[in-house]
Amino acid sequence: MSTPIITISRQYGSGGREIGKRLADELRIPFYDRALIELAAKKSGFDESLFDKADQQSTNSLFYSLSMLGNASGMADLPIHDKLFLIQSNVIREVAEQGPCVIVGRCADYVLQEMDNVVNLFIHSDIKSKVKRAVSEYDVPEKNAEDFITKIDKKRATYYKYYTGMKWGWADNFHLCLYSDSIGISNTVKLVQSYINMLS
Amino acid sequence: MSTPIITISRQYGSGGREIGKRLADELRIPFYDRALIELAAKKSGFDESLFDKADQQSTNSLFYSLSMLGNASGMADLPIHDKLFLIQSNVIREVAEQGPCVIVGRCADYVLQEMDNVVNLFIHSDIKSKVKRAVSEYDVPEKNAEDFITKIDKKRATYYKYYTGMKWGWADNFHLCLYSDSIGISNTVKLVQSYINMLS
Repeated sequence: MSTPIITISRQYGSGGREIGKRLADELRIPFYDRALIELAAKKSGFDESLFDKADQQSTNSLFYSLSMLGNASGMADLPIHDKLFLIQSNVIREVAEQGPCVIVGRCADYVLQEMDNVVNLFIHSDIKSKVKRAVSEYDVPEKNAEDFITKIDKKRATYYKYYTGMKWGWADNFHLCLYSDSIGISNTVKLVQSYINMLS
Repeated sequence: MSTPIITISRQYGSGGREIGKRLADELRIPFYDRALIELAAKKSGFDESLFDKADQQSTNSLFYSLSMLGNASGMADLPIHDKLFLIQSNVIREVAEQGPCVIVGRCADYVLQEMDNVVNLFIHSDIKSKVKRAVSEYDVPEKNAEDFITKIDKKRATYYKYYTGMKWGWADNFHLCLYSDSIGISNTVKLVQSYINMLS
């Protein structure tokens, strides 16, 4: 099998983003995290900050059908966060159609569910190591780090549920779920590479 | 790290049992599936068939604390399926204390949660391949195989929830969750072996 498109869903502070970046470097394929928002902002004319905030505005009351994707005329009456999600989803599809890449977050696993050659990963870890990473790498104040992380992960779960109708962190939705603490970031990257090499 | 104790939770027909057996053979460590029930029956004097049926008798209304484990005097008033679970849990602890082994099902991940050197796996797969395996390996009639598998997995989830208070199939509860269809049984065994070699 040729190098797949890799989507990564990750708990905050689990090292999922770093794993994705290193995977992309090792496989010499593009990495989309922040770059995806920049592309979506450029394409739509909306400010990048709106995309950043979008996942805080969704509720868990609606399972929004992606059937409207690409239906520009149907977007006029949508709430802004739904419009942003659709724009972002179109960008995800566009970059995925260009070839193998790593995409972090943004329900990319769901957006690309009709495509072949997609591998969906979920990275999680212990709250202690998440706090450590949040403090050292994202400058989160140590005092409230645990609460902060719990809230962010809850928002990610809500955002995922809202747009996909599926449960975030449910093993069934992913090809490979890994607890990054047990073998560390470098070994997790190596293990995912081994997995990719085994795909037939 | 020395060879760990490996617990395997698996969807019916996902190949999880076979993966466990092959892993045990490769690592030259004991494999406990049916053997666990035989040991528990021998130890307790209860018939093996009672253990087989135990997971059909639990409901999802009670999160039973394992704090009573080993408290023989507290067992007298328990329903039979709870007694069987406690006997079985004691057997799981006893075999785990003897050294590395592979244990399939029976909430072994939860029973051994206080032990170091335990790796918890969850194996799942597509309903089509589960039907194929159920028909070819377990002689399940093809006509009703999908319903049958769904019911068995629901029972496993209920049993797990009842005794552990946790969600079966939730990535957070496992070190490694694998979709066995994507790379097949042999490669899944190899990948888990690679993972074990990476444990520090």
